[in-house]
Amino acid sequence: MSRTESAFHPSPAPQIAALNPYVPGKPISELERELGIRESVKLASNENPLGPGDKARAAYAQAAMDLGRYPDGGGFALRQAIARHHGVDAGMVTIGNGSNDVLDMVARTFLHPGRESVFSQHAFAVYPIAIQAVGATPRIAPARDYGHDLDAMAALINDKTDVVWIANPNNPTGTWLTAAPLKDFIASLPKTCICVLDEAYIEYVSDPDFPNGVDWLADFPNLIITRTFSKIHGLAALRVGYSLSHPQAAELMNRVRHPFNVNAPAQAAAIAALDDAPHIARSAELNRAGLAQLSAGLQALGLAVIPSLGNFVTVDLGRPVGPVDQALLREGVICRPVANYGLPNHLRISIGLEAENARCLAALEKVLAA
Amino acid sequence: MSRTESAFHPSPAPQIAALNPYVPGKPISELERELGIRESVKLASNENPLGPGDKARAAYAQAAMDLGRYPDGGGFALRQAIARHHGVDAGMVTIGNGSNDVLDMVARTFLHPGRESVFSQHAFAVYPIAIQAVGATPRIAPARDYGHDLDAMAALINDKTDVVWIANPNNPTGTWLTAAPLKDFIASLPKTCICVLDEAYIEYVSDPDFPNGVDWLADFPNLIITRTFSKIHGLAALRVGYSLSHPQAAELMNRVRHPFNVNAPAQAAAIAALDDAPHIARSAELNRAGLAQLSAGLQALGLAVIPSLGNFVTVDLGRPVGPVDQALLREGVICRPVANYGLPNHLRISIGLEAENARCLAALEKVLAA
Repeated sequence: MSRTESAFHPSPAPQIAALNPYVPGKPISELERELGIRESVKLASNENPLGPGDKARAAYAQAAMDLGRYPDGGGFALRQAIARHHGVDAGMVTIGNGSNDVLDMVARTFLHPGRESVFSQHAFAVYPIAIQAVGATPRIAPARDYGHDLDAMAALINDKTDVVWIANPNNPTGTWLTAAPLKDFIASLPKTCICVLDEAYIEYVSDPDFPNGVDWLADFPNLIITRTFSKIHGLAALRVGYSLSHPQAAELMNRVRHPFNVNAPAQAAAIAALDDAPHIARSAELNRAGLAQLSAGLQALGLAVIPSLGNFVTVDLGRPVGPVDQALLREGVICRPVANYGLPNHLRISIGLEAENARCLAALEKVLAA
Repeated sequence: MSRTESAFHPSPAPQIAALNPYVPGKPISELERELGIRESVKLASNENPLGPGDKARAAYAQAAMDLGRYPDGGGFALRQAIARHHGVDAGMVTIGNGSNDVLDMVARTFLHPGRESVFSQHAFAVYPIAIQAVGATPRIAPARDYGHDLDAMAALINDKTDVVWIANPNNPTGTWLTAAPLKDFIASLPKTCICVLDEAYIEYVSDPDFPNGVDWLADFPNLIITRTFSKIHGLAALRVGYSLSHPQAAELMNRVRHPFNVNAPAQAAAIAALDDAPHIARSAELNRAGLAQLSAGLQALGLAVIPSLGNFVTVDLGRPVGPVDQALLREGVICRPVANYGLPNHLRISIGLEAENARCLAALEKVLAA
């Protein structure tokens, strides 16, 4: 079929026409081939360098027995396991094909054209995409010290605001909000306004005073907590996320959820991962050490790092990130430039194994000196 | 959290309020426990009783090495493999988390409130859900002999119609359309109207004259073909579907596609399954024999079966299906009542292994005689 021969006449829905086309990136194997590198170090996607624990691996292997059968469409056992883990009712759990899917369900359920949705500058890129895909209007509050400025966000709330998004800790900056101001902010919202509290990275935080949104669900019926199995649980390949919310929010979101959205091995591995406390502790400890190693190494290079509670650190290179990133790639080190997050001089580096972090620091030293 | 304590104030988008709440079914393991049965025969979901072939199983096992890493967000290798398999450009391929995801992307991309979408009575249940979830208006054409009545469908097309859905063969009836009338129908559509041709079951059809929509893509820029790996490829657990379309339709649909919608083992297993011709042939042959076995057995019980080209047969019980289905469950035979498809007396039976088909026939004979 030749593209020039056949004109395409159908029109997309108005909000789709306004969305930026998705340009799929090249997979790492292709990138390695093009650059003539191998054994590259991947510190680009905030993954757990240990992968999943043995329990999740065993569950994955066991799921091979039944690849011909549909997954459980309701995610019965997974929702029960999540509910038990958090001490909530299973009717409060909504499962997603990654937390991306859950965030999109929130937008589809609670936003529509003519309505507004508030989030912070430098927040997760999925929020504006989800908002725009349903034709609602994004309102972006300027950041303060790279993090959420709750006063600036509050100033954007009005009677058209249906959903507010907060990530704590935030990706890609690693910044965080403490309990008292965050709780006050949620309490100040109109009762009709959904507050999404995205806690994808919370398991990496060791401070016992760090706010756990699950504790606030009883206070705020408009609160939706999102979590993921792609970070500390080490299951990014399998795409499992979930939300905890008022049962009525869950019931509404399940109307747009695709019945089989989480596939069978993903459900099985997530159940096994959830209560694998030793693997979670090991992963958190590795991250703590690696974050200290990378932060110290970057500071030794004279670079300013944004203090982070996640499994990544974002560093100000003091110059445009593009050429540095390209030079790092040629050294076999893959990080994440975050110019598209409004941070044109910053590079986000995920915490890897000790040797990977060291290789990244050495490559960065070489590239910056060149 | 007590549901009675906290009232929920946020309002869903208007079209969500009108959607039926999703009630997740119990998984089979729960059903077996409740009914006190085991080793039940599952002929309910049009799965391949052989599961996937050895190549797909090996690819699944291999994917265990990298569970901590995100899938390729663009599905580069899978899209290349699908394009090569069908002799089309990779820019014409859109991958989905099952074909359900692709069908939903079509609705999100090309429908919006105030617009209409046409499909047939007794067609796949996902079409009306996808249409209603974006606030468009479903228009349902009455069936003819349980199948699509193209004249009745054409009569519903007007200048508000943005998407028409056709399944060939159709689920849950197994009915089909031949090449000439189908091609004439597509040619008669307004050029602005998308035609979805859902070919989930086409690999089970052996007739060389059966229409393959892929051959028509060059003629009809408004044509979108959908396919799945959940049927003959035996990968229902993994959720992979795709569409083939004009590159511009694919580009628009990719704007609403979640970047990591098909997980890593699913991509790997699907690539391996695609060209496993011996497994596809073996599965088709098993289905042919089982369809003949079941059809003959049902007719011997004095029941009228709808002629089917799929991996299932739908039978008129001549009485309400509910009690028969319940009695079959107690015999350990799980089929699919299709009352929700407007067929209150019909039971859909998926083709299983020879012994499973025999057990189903014996149980049905016993239940109907009771």
